[in-house]
Amino acid sequence: MRAMQTARIGIFGGSGYAGTELTRLLLGHPGAQVAFVASERKVGQSVARELGLPTSTTGLMFVGFEAARAMACDVVMLATPAEASLQLAPECLARGTRVVDLSGAFRLSDAASFRKHYQLDSPSTELQSQAVYGLPELSRERIAGARLVANPGCYPTAAILGLAPLLRAGLIDPSTIIVDAASGVTGAGRKASEEYSLAELTGDFKAYKVLRHQHTPEIAQALENAGGRAPRVTFTPHLLPVPRGILCTSYARLMQPLASADVAACLARAYAGEPFIDLAEHPDRVGLRQVVGTNQCQLAAASDPESGQVVVVSAIDNLVKGAAGQALQNLNLMLGWPETTGLTTLRRFTP
Amino acid sequence: MRAMQTARIGIFGGSGYAGTELTRLLLGHPGAQVAFVASERKVGQSVARELGLPTSTTGLMFVGFEAARAMACDVVMLATPAEASLQLAPECLARGTRVVDLSGAFRLSDAASFRKHYQLDSPSTELQSQAVYGLPELSRERIAGARLVANPGCYPTAAILGLAPLLRAGLIDPSTIIVDAASGVTGAGRKASEEYSLAELTGDFKAYKVLRHQHTPEIAQALENAGGRAPRVTFTPHLLPVPRGILCTSYARLMQPLASADVAACLARAYAGEPFIDLAEHPDRVGLRQVVGTNQCQLAAASDPESGQVVVVSAIDNLVKGAAGQALQNLNLMLGWPETTGLTTLRRFTP
Amino acid sequence: MRAMQTARIGIFGGSGYAGTELTRLLLGHPGAQVAFVASERKVGQSVARELGLPTSTTGLMFVGFEAARAMACDVVMLATPAEASLQLAPECLARGTRVVDLSGAFRLSDAASFRKHYQLDSPSTELQSQAVYGLPELSRERIAGARLVANPGCYPTAAILGLAPLLRAGLIDPSTIIVDAASGVTGAGRKASEEYSLAELTGDFKAYKVLRHQHTPEIAQALENAGGRAPRVTFTPHLLPVPRGILCTSYARLMQPLASADVAACLARAYAGEPFIDLAEHPDRVGLRQVVGTNQCQLAAASDPESGQVVVVSAIDNLVKGAAGQALQNLNLMLGWPETTGLTTLRRFTP
Amino acid sequence: MRAMQTARIGIFGGSGYAGTELTRLLLGHPGAQVAFVASERKVGQSVARELGLPTSTTGLMFVGFEAARAMACDVVMLATPAEASLQLAPECLARGTRVVDLSGAFRLSDAASFRKHYQLDSPSTELQSQAVYGLPELSRERIAGARLVANPGCYPTAAILGLAPLLRAGLIDPSTIIVDAASGVTGAGRKASEEYSLAELTGDFKAYKVLRHQHTPEIAQALENAGGRAPRVTFTPHLLPVPRGILCTSYARLMQPLASADVAACLARAYAGEPFIDLAEHPDRVGLRQVVGTNQCQLAAASDPESGQVVVVSAIDNLVKGAAGQALQNLNLMLGWPETTGLTTLRRFTP
Repeated sequence: MRAMQTARIGIFGGSGYAGTELTRLLLGHPGAQVAFVASERKVGQSVARELGLPTSTTGLMFVGFEAARAMACDVVMLATPAEASLQLAPECLARGTRVVDLSGAFRLSDAASFRKHYQLDSPSTELQSQAVYGLPELSRERIAGARLVANPGCYPTAAILGLAPLLRAGLIDPSTIIVDAASGVTGAGRKASEEYSLAELTGDFKAYKVLRHQHTPEIAQALENAGGRAPRVTFTPHLLPVPRGILCTSYARLMQPLASADVAACLARAYAGEPFIDLAEHPDRVGLRQVVGTNQCQLAAASDPESGQVVVVSAIDNLVKGAAGQALQNLNLMLGWPETTGLTTLRRFTP
Repeated sequence: MRAMQTARIGIFGGSGYAGTELTRLLLGHPGAQVAFVASERKVGQSVARELGLPTSTTGLMFVGFEAARAMACDVVMLATPAEASLQLAPECLARGTRVVDLSGAFRLSDAASFRKHYQLDSPSTELQSQAVYGLPELSRERIAGARLVANPGCYPTAAILGLAPLLRAGLIDPSTIIVDAASGVTGAGRKASEEYSLAELTGDFKAYKVLRHQHTPEIAQALENAGGRAPRVTFTPHLLPVPRGILCTSYARLMQPLASADVAACLARAYAGEPFIDLAEHPDRVGLRQVVGTNQCQLAAASDPESGQVVVVSAIDNLVKGAAGQALQNLNLMLGWPETTGLTTLRRFTP
Repeated sequence: MRAMQTARIGIFGGSGYAGTELTRLLLGHPGAQVAFVASERKVGQSVARELGLPTSTTGLMFVGFEAARAMACDVVMLATPAEASLQLAPECLARGTRVVDLSGAFRLSDAASFRKHYQLDSPSTELQSQAVYGLPELSRERIAGARLVANPGCYPTAAILGLAPLLRAGLIDPSTIIVDAASGVTGAGRKASEEYSLAELTGDFKAYKVLRHQHTPEIAQALENAGGRAPRVTFTPHLLPVPRGILCTSYARLMQPLASADVAACLARAYAGEPFIDLAEHPDRVGLRQVVGTNQCQLAAASDPESGQVVVVSAIDNLVKGAAGQALQNLNLMLGWPETTGLTTLRRFTP
Repeated sequence: MRAMQTARIGIFGGSGYAGTELTRLLLGHPGAQVAFVASERKVGQSVARELGLPTSTTGLMFVGFEAARAMACDVVMLATPAEASLQLAPECLARGTRVVDLSGAFRLSDAASFRKHYQLDSPSTELQSQAVYGLPELSRERIAGARLVANPGCYPTAAILGLAPLLRAGLIDPSTIIVDAASGVTGAGRKASEEYSLAELTGDFKAYKVLRHQHTPEIAQALENAGGRAPRVTFTPHLLPVPRGILCTSYARLMQPLASADVAACLARAYAGEPFIDLAEHPDRVGLRQVVGTNQCQLAAASDPESGQVVVVSAIDNLVKGAAGQALQNLNLMLGWPETTGLTTLRRFTP
């Protein structure tokens, strides 16, 4: 085996949930040299220790954002809030450093929609035009050449992978899309909070941000890009009392009566050869346990020709395919590394 | 306080989850005299011990079904599988004993639909015509006079309470109804199974019986009775890794643009004075923790006038309002007892 | 039934876990009139809403500590940190108000030990001499006449109830006592914290404060008072990934070989007629699920005559018998109410 | 890197929890060629599918025990009940195949003790004398040359690794040992059972097999072999409501007053250079989350010079270091492969 060409990778926001997952993945990647891991909260502390790894794994210490800004690298990964990404990305790009941003800062092309959902000034038109939405299964080529990749949100990843092939093939009515999804609590990020304590959440289940979640326009935009027509998307996220995983149950009206096998065939054609898509035999077979700890998206569809309704169930690990794993998949594409590098030794969580 | 008139109540199927919950509730009810608790699996064992209660609570021992059949009582509660209820109910009625059946045996008025979903011979037309669907908030008067009450399914209870007032008021299009729900594992009943072990279910979440759950026609039938037009219902149940509780997120298209406040007002009018309905300010406020251990149904709705979509979130304890508690509510109505008797001292589960 | 004489009860610290549990219990108590519920964090908010109860239950609003100090009542319950109790208790006593303190402020009679474990100035000798350690099963009479009751810690309650009868009967060697216990996370109190988040604690189990927990001298002192000789106690608490409950596995060397039945007989004699002690047939039968949600302490012992070791397993709900329930039991004794008033309708948590 | 010499490995009992974990590990091992995976329950089914792996991982199908017996291989791994291992091991050895047995069949050298705890006829004296107790940190050399390795039990692994160095160094009194441990539910094996259902176990915690668990003599025997004197061991296992992991809190009396640092130094000397031992700074730092999913044993000790008591807390993943991982570690030693092969890419479970 010929040695892989290496690249220097910097990480901002390395102590949140997505950031630690990303750091762990990059430390195990044969081509990535981790140039720095920046975290304001952890400056001077051992990265290995924070990750729960033997200290022999890496001698890296967390650095502050200021120090990190001065360090050279080939690609910077931003596991930061949108507000920080809006500042850091242009700086890095100006110095010729390519960027993968895990926040929502560069995902929405409509500036008004961005301002409404993020309560932040939208990025410049120039930056916006540079940003490539990083869902490899839909736009692998554009990602490879991108200077700025907007890594998709966790819910959008699961929802779009389930619905885009059906929309693109014209099988479903874009005005009838409902996405009902549930996520483990790491989706809310890492923070001190009574609300997310084990004592408060054990045994609970509830919806949140009903009819006003910022991932709604992101799903709609990606589906429009995939299918050519602006869809109407109703999206309801729920909070599961588990650490990780997203299960997405999506509904749409069929354009004409189709059996489950026909819908499954459409998905099979769209995803032939995709290394991170697992097509299940039936929606009942899709579950968090099959995907947590991996970069896979497992999915399946069923239809009721009588009522004309189709149901697609898709599952991902919100921190892997929904964040850090997909970011690494994008990095692999950008640097010409095999797309699955560093993403295949993840182990299943059974039991 | 005048002493409540008492009645003798017999319970078949007293060792399953709904049956133990029902037995516990009846033992604490000031009017109910528990005549017998029948369970083939537990014959001769202490009922108190099975319920985890001090043995001073009751000296009752489980009896077999044969022995129980010979015992006189005023009302029999059947916490048995549909197959057993189909046999027991006519026997009891023939002897003049009124019946509350917690199974699905007498819920569906369409015989073909029953045979398809239960793989059992449908009950006689005479029995069918006697059976009253026991959702007190929708048909309190008919229940009071019923000889045979078909206690609603757990998912239907949550779904129907959320949607019926909107349908009845003509606010939503009955052809666009989607019910996406999740239940704790006691919904699957009490049984030895690898599938429901803690080792297999921890951290998991998945859909099941997609597009073929037997509660789908039950929901549709009750909504048709409430709203006058046959609705088209798509229903997807999911399995939560928690013991108890159902959260139901229901979707429909509005007949005309309405603000959330208008939808909420419709629910408020429908449920004014209802002791077991808690209207929350917003769907984000509804959750399992507010209802588990109680007979309450908590619910709220929000609408998006732009997209014309309404979302209703409703929550119940699947073993209380979704089974044993509602059965007792029905019993109270049948015997002229105050409807909330024995159902108000249940405590909230916090934390 | 003759009406129970009522008394006005004030609660300080009503928004923590013990405080909300206590408030809930007092609101359901036929003799208690809740004069005020004080919480600095929740001033002006609805008490019913905080407890997850229908607002019809009580119109009380949380008041601040200053306002509460001016309100008259017969007994004040302090669900406050030791630091606050040290200030509030003398004030209340000076005004002739009796006090039940749920903190550790008045439990230790040794001032040096108190200062070491609580890092606070010890209370005055006079206060100290007034305080009665409120474990009703061991000192019912003294509690009835007390002006200041030091409500026991959660771990000590479970440990002492298991070991005191064996020590008092001279069956075990006081120099060989080991208490290994595990508690649900509400034992740590209610607070915003990353450490107690569901994401961090799910699937975890660990010891904490090894060889330095402040409940160690409390257990030793109560056992000395019960048995007459100063014991040597090693105590290790562990954190369980569940909301509620303490299981305590205690070890001691037998003074002479004894069969399990002999040890069980000693416990049975000690606790004959005790309403809140459930003796199980064997330590394997004791578990959190039997006690969570109740004021019971379930316990059982087994011995190995060959090795001369005895093992006692005891279980309580840390927020009920380990805090609020026991405080109410003490209040009942102080006010001459039947000891079980307001504590018997708690329901078991099954499943 | 020179290619590793390969060996053919057969697995009996490949569908239980230890067996699936072992199969997964062997499929990722660069030197192991999996000759067969035998499971009576799963004959003809896909091994990859059972493990939740992409079917491209391996085309192996489960075979029956009869078929497996006829297949040649270099080493057979028995993840079978003791009863089956007692039959299979001598057969394999007779054909010249080396054996690693994960059951308790060959762990106890005292025949009477074996019969008492396993209710089975003890193996022949010849087999018994061949069997090497496979705890690599204590007897690496003997394992390398063994024909039959008795892979240690899960609780004994955690307990012995914590206590053996202290006994061997003469720091603790062997007559005072208490082992208090808690395990996730996979420790009970894979089976259909109401007792281990999520509905029954959620929120529970309890001791089991108090004073009669079969791992007690195993711990005592290994400690005697390590320390030279027969210890007196009291062992109490508890059931945690989590899938995986064992935490062991062990107690002993010091032979003479020692500070925590002295005890820690003893452990550090004993385990210098050990790849699978993680010494933590303090017992409070040891927890399941640090070890679940890895082959590590994390441990730390603290002592109270005043009371003369030492506390050792040790944690492992019961299915990895407590079963399949340790079996692979033993296999590596037997075949001259680097001891950590196939065991280092396991990932931590955070969060």
